[in-house]
Amino acid sequence: MSIAAKYYPQEPKVPVVKTSSIPGPESVKELAQLGEVFDARPAYFVADYEKSLGNYIVDADGNTYLDVYAQIASIALGYNNPKLIEAAQSPEMIRALVDRPALGNFPSKDLNSILRKILKFAPKGQDKIWSGLSGADANELAFKAAFMYYRAKQRGVGAEFSAEENSTVMKNEEPGSPHLAVLSFKKAFHGRLFASGSVTCSKPIHKLDFPAFNWPHAEYPSYTFPLAENEAANRAEDDRCLKIVEDLITSWSIPVAALIIEPIQSEGGDNHGSKYFLQSLRDLTLKLGVVYIIDEVQTGVGATGKAWCHEWADIQPPVDLVTFSKKFQSAGYFFHDPLFVPNKPYRQFNTWCGEPARMIIAGAIAEEITENNLLDQCARVGDYLYAKLEKLQSQYPDKFQRLRGQNRGTFIAWDLSSSAERDALLKDLKLKGCNVGGCAELSVRLRPTLSFEEKHADILVEALSQAVADL
Amino acid sequence: MSIAAKYYPQEPKVPVVKTSSIPGPESVKELAQLGEVFDARPAYFVADYEKSLGNYIVDADGNTYLDVYAQIASIALGYNNPKLIEAAQSPEMIRALVDRPALGNFPSKDLNSILRKILKFAPKGQDKIWSGLSGADANELAFKAAFMYYRAKQRGVGAEFSAEENSTVMKNEEPGSPHLAVLSFKKAFHGRLFASGSVTCSKPIHKLDFPAFNWPHAEYPSYTFPLAENEAANRAEDDRCLKIVEDLITSWSIPVAALIIEPIQSEGGDNHGSKYFLQSLRDLTLKLGVVYIIDEVQTGVGATGKAWCHEWADIQPPVDLVTFSKKFQSAGYFFHDPLFVPNKPYRQFNTWCGEPARMIIAGAIAEEITENNLLDQCARVGDYLYAKLEKLQSQYPDKFQRLRGQNRGTFIAWDLSSSAERDALLKDLKLKGCNVGGCAELSVRLRPTLSFEEKHADILVEALSQAVADL
Repeated sequence: MSIAAKYYPQEPKVPVVKTSSIPGPESVKELAQLGEVFDARPAYFVADYEKSLGNYIVDADGNTYLDVYAQIASIALGYNNPKLIEAAQSPEMIRALVDRPALGNFPSKDLNSILRKILKFAPKGQDKIWSGLSGADANELAFKAAFMYYRAKQRGVGAEFSAEENSTVMKNEEPGSPHLAVLSFKKAFHGRLFASGSVTCSKPIHKLDFPAFNWPHAEYPSYTFPLAENEAANRAEDDRCLKIVEDLITSWSIPVAALIIEPIQSEGGDNHGSKYFLQSLRDLTLKLGVVYIIDEVQTGVGATGKAWCHEWADIQPPVDLVTFSKKFQSAGYFFHDPLFVPNKPYRQFNTWCGEPARMIIAGAIAEEITENNLLDQCARVGDYLYAKLEKLQSQYPDKFQRLRGQNRGTFIAWDLSSSAERDALLKDLKLKGCNVGGCAELSVRLRPTLSFEEKHADILVEALSQAVADL
Repeated sequence: MSIAAKYYPQEPKVPVVKTSSIPGPESVKELAQLGEVFDARPAYFVADYEKSLGNYIVDADGNTYLDVYAQIASIALGYNNPKLIEAAQSPEMIRALVDRPALGNFPSKDLNSILRKILKFAPKGQDKIWSGLSGADANELAFKAAFMYYRAKQRGVGAEFSAEENSTVMKNEEPGSPHLAVLSFKKAFHGRLFASGSVTCSKPIHKLDFPAFNWPHAEYPSYTFPLAENEAANRAEDDRCLKIVEDLITSWSIPVAALIIEPIQSEGGDNHGSKYFLQSLRDLTLKLGVVYIIDEVQTGVGATGKAWCHEWADIQPPVDLVTFSKKFQSAGYFFHDPLFVPNKPYRQFNTWCGEPARMIIAGAIAEEITENNLLDQCARVGDYLYAKLEKLQSQYPDKFQRLRGQNRGTFIAWDLSSSAERDALLKDLKLKGCNVGGCAELSVRLRPTLSFEEKHADILVEALSQAVADL
């Protein structure tokens, strides 16, 4: 039985859009009320999650969309998944919700088994975890781990903090508050707080008016597609970017303690990093003594047909820290080297040290993916969908430029000729019953759940072919 | 009927400690397992939340403690509160858990009513909200709001970003990434990420090795207690500190866009800010064009006998932003001036824009506090407890130095003569069945739930008088 049929026997067969504009009148009314107290301007519509099911999201006007965006790539299994409902109703969950522990000081009896379930799904080579609350939080916690590790290596294992460090840190001055940098990439997105915001380099609107650390952005490779036909050019592009990375690390005015990279830049336009590029960064970071952080916030948890996207690159030795959030619902970082546990307690610490309710959901998601072979399904459906999109591409090459994501599950994207054209396509797709997201200036990104099947792909492709013809 | 009797008819009558050391052997065993994958070194014991009830927390060895620390001041009503269990089992909660929305893009139909429930409990003068995930997150989101507001005023309402801003921001350079500061206070605690870490000034261990912004720390008043007998000296102390604040704002090398302060510095040692001090900061911030942020993460949600501690100061006009987390379970900031909504959407934004599951809990907590007059109870029990501690103080003046928190509900603290003595007291209190926390170097801080009653205070005072005699 198909997984969608198993989970969602009542899933709608087709999208239905009843209103002539989106948001419809009921969404508009509710958004006006919400807007009195909350910034609701970015809302596409008000959702009725009670009525949403599987791959379909229903709005306040009763419009039913095939959801290929899935809450900005953060719904793993589909709406109202029965196994997650089970987890949500478990006594363990009730306790996590009503007796939220300070997990560092008073961990629950449940915590060990909850974490082990998550760790079963950890990237290859990683077997320890620290937990946070969001992608931005996960990345900043990883930076903290990286800075402590970097300074510990400088100071010598076991060395105490100096009196000067202890006094200067209270004035935000070095050496206690050292000038250290994290290198990231142009078009990167790693979150919107202040350190995560400093490594983010997506759009001005994400960053304007916020103080930032003086941290460098290297260039992320920009490949020519299809990849198989452009190997030499793309290898040259990798080498060009690797040189920039090395030059920045060795010449930046502040020591570079860590490097953070998305295996596919998602918000920044679905820019893929090759196996060669990601492995070469491992070699380079080892050579230069830089901590290697992979940000799997958007790429992780199955959507590329592997549990974690960077597993496609089989990086050896494994990277130092892998951050996660979004589709895992819980957030944090995985690691393996015990030296990333700080030399003293209370250095990587806060009141809650994570969210047990979301950890329980993460464990249930991991279990379902494994038990139902959802990675294989995602790879299979992705291939099916990609082939169909290639056909559309041959028919409308202008509307499907730089099609990417071959052999990467349903993590597929392509470009249009202008932002206006892309936005018009996304708008029309909604009216045709498909909720699809964009990224960067020109790209359409597909981010369905792991319950997305061939029959859903057919509906999407049909809507797309009509919408593209209408453009 | 007393609230504890209403909520927790089966609540233990007295603490019971069965093990000769804490953590007991079962906790030790479980912590060793947990420690293989998670930094469990700060754990006092492993808690059994299934067996915990009301004001009593039970550990893995079956020890039952009166909990006067309450998960670092973050449990509002007590363990396994029946009304929160009801909220945790509601269909609304199940949806929030299994269909977690990107609240900014696809808000749920439930969101408006969830937020209105929370806003009913907002500090006087505040009627809008932005939601986050933790105290640190709430403060950093407030900084973002403050920076955007500050720059909008400089730029002129309605003015667009310049081409130079749009290009420099992508390089983390000014003017797009402006050099702007947030002023905070020595001994402040506002979180442990990078911007929140830069305003935090509690202990070196919280900050060492992390890059920080070059932001100033003023001095927080250090009063002589009891307050009523030292009015003139304390007023002079306020004025001394106000002068430092003004001098720093007018002379710091970076423009100060915002000021953040705890009405009582909690982690930093329960240092109280007077009504005069907090009001004078309002006058000063208005005069100097600085955004005024009150951090109510630890002081908020009833523990001082008011919903929000700064309401004791009746600051006029109301402060600009009030941040919350901990006992509210949900996090974020309240505000009232529509100019704190950024000029464009997607500036204060992220994938989740808060955690609806925790917002539902916050609404239920607010409702329970209001319906059961828990603020009055907290004030009453606090007075009762404070009077008993004054008696102990007269008996053991060395062990109850600078007793503080009179007329501030159960938000009570005092000092011992050394860290070693304070730590010994806390350790012995655990063995006597009372889980109590410290803060700063010398202080004991009491942070019971709002279900704490006279009978619980009696048990605490009895254990204290024995423990102090044993010191």
